[in-house]
Parts: sequence; C-alpha cells; structure tokens
Amino acid sequence: MNRTFEIETRGQGTYEFTRDIVRWVEGAGVSEGLLTLFIRHTSASLLVMENADPEVQVDIRHYFARLVPPTTDPAMSYLTHTYEGPDDMPAHIKAALLPVSVQIPIIGGRLALGTWQGLFVFEHRDRPHHRKVAAHIG
Amino acid sequence: MNRTFEIETRGQGTYEFTRDIVRWVEGAGVSEGLLTLFIRHTSASLLVMENADPEVQVDIRHYFARLVPPTTDPAMSYLTHTYEGPDDMPAHIKAALLPVSVQIPIIGGRLALGTWQGLFVFEHRDRPHHRKVAAHIG
Amino acid sequence: MNRTFEIETRGQGTYEFTRDIVRWVEGAGVSEGLLTLFIRHTSASLLVMENADPEVQVDIRHYFARLVPPTTDPAMSYLTHTYEGPDDMPAHIKAALLPVSVQIPIIGGRLALGTWQGLFVFEHRDRPHHRKVAAHIG
Repeated sequence: MNRTFEIETRGQGTYEFTRDIVRWVEGAGVSEGLLTLFIRHTSASLLVMENADPEVQVDIRHYFARLVPPTTDPAMSYLTHTYEGPDDMPAHIKAALLPVSVQIPIIGGRLALGTWQGLFVFEHRDRPHHRKVAAHIG
Repeated sequence: MNRTFEIETRGQGTYEFTRDIVRWVEGAGVSEGLLTLFIRHTSASLLVMENADPEVQVDIRHYFARLVPPTTDPAMSYLTHTYEGPDDMPAHIKAALLPVSVQIPIIGGRLALGTWQGLFVFEHRDRPHHRKVAAHIG
Repeated sequence: MNRTFEIETRGQGTYEFTRDIVRWVEGAGVSEGLLTLFIRHTSASLLVMENADPEVQVDIRHYFARLVPPTTDPAMSYLTHTYEGPDDMPAHIKAALLPVSVQIPIIGGRLALGTWQGLFVFEHRDRPHHRKVAAHIG
C-alpha cells in the first residue's frame, strides 16, 4: 500500500507530521507489517526525534546550521556548487548526513514508535518548499 | 514476524547484539526476506560497524564525543535544552545523526552481513539505560 | 527477490549506479513494492544524492574529508586504530555517519526516486576496492 504525503515548509527547521502517518497506518487495517518513509528530495531530510519539548527541535536546527554553515562562511570557501544560493550546497550535505529513508515496524496494528519519538521533515533550504514523502506499508 | 530485543547499557559506548539477531533470523525459517531493526529511543542509535578490533569501537565513541560535546563545553553554550543534564541534548543530536532504523536482506536463510559487520546499540547517555529494539522479518 | 550488485571503486569519492538499479527494478515486474539496498562493508557507504551537477559530488567528498580528516592530521591524534593506514579509521567513522541501508518504494512498477536523486556508493578508502551491495525487492 502506497501513499504520498505532502509537507509545506517555510524555511530551515523541522516540520512534524507524526499524526498524519499514525492516522494512515492505524486506518490501513494491517496488524503486523512495516512502514517505510522515503523523502524524494536532495535538500531536505527525514528525522525521528523527540517531540515533547520544542527546544529540542530548535537546538537540532542550530547544531546542524553550525556543523554545515552557509557558503558565505569563510570556512566553507572550498565549496564549488554555490550558484543556487549560500544555503544550497549545505542543504545537499545535510541531506547526505541525515536520513532519506526510515522504517518502523507495525505491531498489533500500531506503529512501534517509542514514547518520545515523532516524525519530522527537516527542511534545509531558506525558502518555502513543497516536500513529498513516499510512504509504503508492506 | 516481530520481536523486541532489550539491551542493557552502562554509559556511553557501543553494545554488540549481533549474535542474538543472527540466532533469531536463522531460527525463523525464512529463506529469503528482509530484517528491519528500529530503536525506540531518542538518545541511543543503531550502528552496523566492524566488530573484529575493539579499538574501532573506542575510536567511534571518542569521535562522536568530540563532534557533539557535552553542554558544559563552551562551544555548546548556544543549546537551550540543558535541564536534563549535560549529556542529554548531545544525545538527541547524535540520535539525529546516526541510524534509528537499519535493514539487512536475508539470503538463503542467512543475514547478508559482510564479513566484518556487527550490529550494535550506541548508547549516548551517561547513566545505565534499558533500550528496546523492535525487530521485524518480512 | 535478491541480487548483489558489485561496484569497482578507485579511491575516495562517489560512484553512481542508479541506472543498474533502475533497470533491475523495472525488469522485475513488481508494480508495488519496496527496494532495499544494503552495503556489506564498514569503510564505504550508500548515498542518495543529486546527480545532475558533478560539482555536488566533489563538494560532498571534500566536506566529509574535512569533517573526518586522515589520522595523520594532528586533530585526529586521539585515534588508536591506525595500523591499517591513515584513511582506515576515518573510513569507519564515515561508514558510521552515512547510510549502510536505504529503502525506496516501488510505485506503478517504477522506483519512487525524486527528479534529482541518484544512487551512489561512497568509497572512503584510498585504494581501489570491490564493493558489494545486497539488493532486495519485497
């Protein structure tokens, strides 16, 4: 069973879509199986992360902004793919570092997420984007 | 087929559980399929890594401790989620960086691990924890 | 359905094999399913990354060479697993950081790759290697 989820982003940061996925899985009538999510982009990632305290999401965004600074930062002057903007090549690097696909078992009709785990799209570009996540239940 | 594996950790580091997984897969009577592992936590990761030389595991732990230092390190003073201890937010960052799920094909009834590959839980917290890994054969 | 893909590498960098995978998937006669790729090594990774502009691949290689320098770099003097060469332990670290497995849904008989996404082996060793990627369609 396949479905594409569409997430609108408004700049760098994390966008939770746990509820949409949980509702789809629980409505699928599959008691035992496997959920796969795959993000169809090279400048955004999937993230399974704590969703209780919003500070965690802020800190995650700041950490990765420092680990992979914009190409306007002198430390990144060796990068060559810069004509699509200072956030573009760092976005590709973050997309290499962070998950493009995630799998979660379905047990007893429910997704086996831990108590504190939520599902997010992590947008790496500054401008708004329309992101597609291909979802599969098998 | 689902099963939950439970791993007791005693501080930051890697904990191998290859043998438990291999025994379960080989006893499952599945000649061709796919193993999925999913860790149900936001402060520990899965790792597929060399298990021949223990120095590799020590070096992996040291590398990530430097890449994401504790919040007591002045370099991390921008982090805001610090009230659960200096190892907590770095643990969430490492959990974002490293795998939450891993898939390994089963071929001829055996897990297609390479010669040097072992399966580990990578604990990012200082105190002992009881970690759960949801496993699925499909 | 299982198959092993073999990729010859010639030093650190990315080696695209999108076309081989797409041809296999499209020839498999599976209209809806899931492709899994698993690399059977601890010093090379899988990468789903932009394949339009070769500069992106060059920049990715340079970024990771700086994030995890060779053990001859004084910044890495704390590493102990050095007897297999200055590129060996950094290769294991990059293999921990980057994907060992990737899953892509198959929808309408085609792989759900985004427009700009290609599949690569990312070689972390300096010398040529023969790399094996276990592929599964389920």
